[in-house]
Amino acid sequence: MVARHESFTIQTEARPEFHDVTGRVQEIVARSGAKEGIAVVFSQHTTCSVIIQEDSIDTTYNGTKFLMQDLLDVFERLIPQCRKEGQYLHPGPKCAEHCVNDVHEPLPFTLNTDAHLRSSIIGRSESIPIVNGELQLGEFGRIYFADFDGTRARERIVRVQVVGE
Amino acid sequence: MVARHESFTIQTEARPEFHDVTGRVQEIVARSGAKEGIAVVFSQHTTCSVIIQEDSIDTTYNGTKFLMQDLLDVFERLIPQCRKEGQYLHPGPKCAEHCVNDVHEPLPFTLNTDAHLRSSIIGRSESIPIVNGELQLGEFGRIYFADFDGTRARERIVRVQVVGE
Amino acid sequence: MVARHESFTIQTEARPEFHDVTGRVQEIVARSGAKEGIAVVFSQHTTCSVIIQEDSIDTTYNGTKFLMQDLLDVFERLIPQCRKEGQYLHPGPKCAEHCVNDVHEPLPFTLNTDAHLRSSIIGRSESIPIVNGELQLGEFGRIYFADFDGTRARERIVRVQVVGE
Repeated sequence: MVARHESFTIQTEARPEFHDVTGRVQEIVARSGAKEGIAVVFSQHTTCSVIIQEDSIDTTYNGTKFLMQDLLDVFERLIPQCRKEGQYLHPGPKCAEHCVNDVHEPLPFTLNTDAHLRSSIIGRSESIPIVNGELQLGEFGRIYFADFDGTRARERIVRVQVVGE
Repeated sequence: MVARHESFTIQTEARPEFHDVTGRVQEIVARSGAKEGIAVVFSQHTTCSVIIQEDSIDTTYNGTKFLMQDLLDVFERLIPQCRKEGQYLHPGPKCAEHCVNDVHEPLPFTLNTDAHLRSSIIGRSESIPIVNGELQLGEFGRIYFADFDGTRARERIVRVQVVGE
Repeated sequence: MVARHESFTIQTEARPEFHDVTGRVQEIVARSGAKEGIAVVFSQHTTCSVIIQEDSIDTTYNGTKFLMQDLLDVFERLIPQCRKEGQYLHPGPKCAEHCVNDVHEPLPFTLNTDAHLRSSIIGRSESIPIVNGELQLGEFGRIYFADFDGTRARERIVRVQVVGE
């Protein structure tokens, strides 16, 4: 049996970003030696998600693939970017106190309610079948790590757990 | 190899509710003895979901965490609470007949179309890596069981399936 | 240990469709011999999803279950059907060139941006616990393969990966 975990990090900027991590995940699957099973690609960050989508080739001026910008545009109507406190219930007064006293972070870092909600809707992970040692992504599928939090640049952790044989 | 299933129940009220089940899931993972693998936290109810989110600390008067109330507010715009038959296509005439004749439940119990749709969008489960026997939830991640169905109080089943070694 | 993959195909029409694949998945789980574990039901197509929902019994004139039509109606407000180029950023100019020169498909086939976005929101797969050899779908749960792409009739692949023992 194979049950092997690896993680890697991604450096994100202070805007929503989508990183193609397909190659990194394929390398981890190859190293695991699993011929048959699943790979769970997982973000433990509560403002991030994992998405399987087509590479839509064209990009915006800041490098966002068109399909991902279309997704952000849909979300902007549904869950507008959090621009100031009071726009959403979160962050509330106790959360702000906790941020200042315990986490020791500037209050504007908590203005990422939109990112929390968007990431809940997309979900935390994707589970992908491995057949004959290959991830089954189809002709066009790519694995994107999505960071919806635009409040600051940050280092993010992507986890890959392979289970199979 | 470890392939171990446990379930537990939750009592919900007649309004959308979010229950933090992190501790229960961690106990099941510990009992399974798995050091490496995944835990699938699953709701088989079609009006419920599993969400990993930050504990946003502040709560509304009825005890809903602010981030979860923000999620409900977003959903209220997108998929408004079903208040009467005809607001959505479902429940249709055959469904109503089935409810009365076969399931023997009051018709208002079928006015949960919003909950079905919200739960489809959030999804049925989360798959979480287990590394060194620990669920990888990050610094802030909590596992919430979401019951979007506000038509009645009910007992709900949460399933946890651990696969690994 | 069991780590067994099977796939099957579905023929879809030139409109969004939802196919109940519960029986096919149950057969694959039975053939796998797994008594305890998970089944990942997966669409590698980036305009398709897998959804667990109740069979809502009533159907529209073209055979769509009421709950699934309600889901399409919600999506039509959030992510309207792509009717012409320029409505969304995708497909962009490089994508159109790639479609004509490399994939050799008519340009209207790329007008499925809505389907890509809807499928990102619903997600690519569902992971379902297997207990005593049975999928845990509850009293009402059915597994639907959703094809959101209405641009053309097509053959689709559904993958089922069973991991357990």
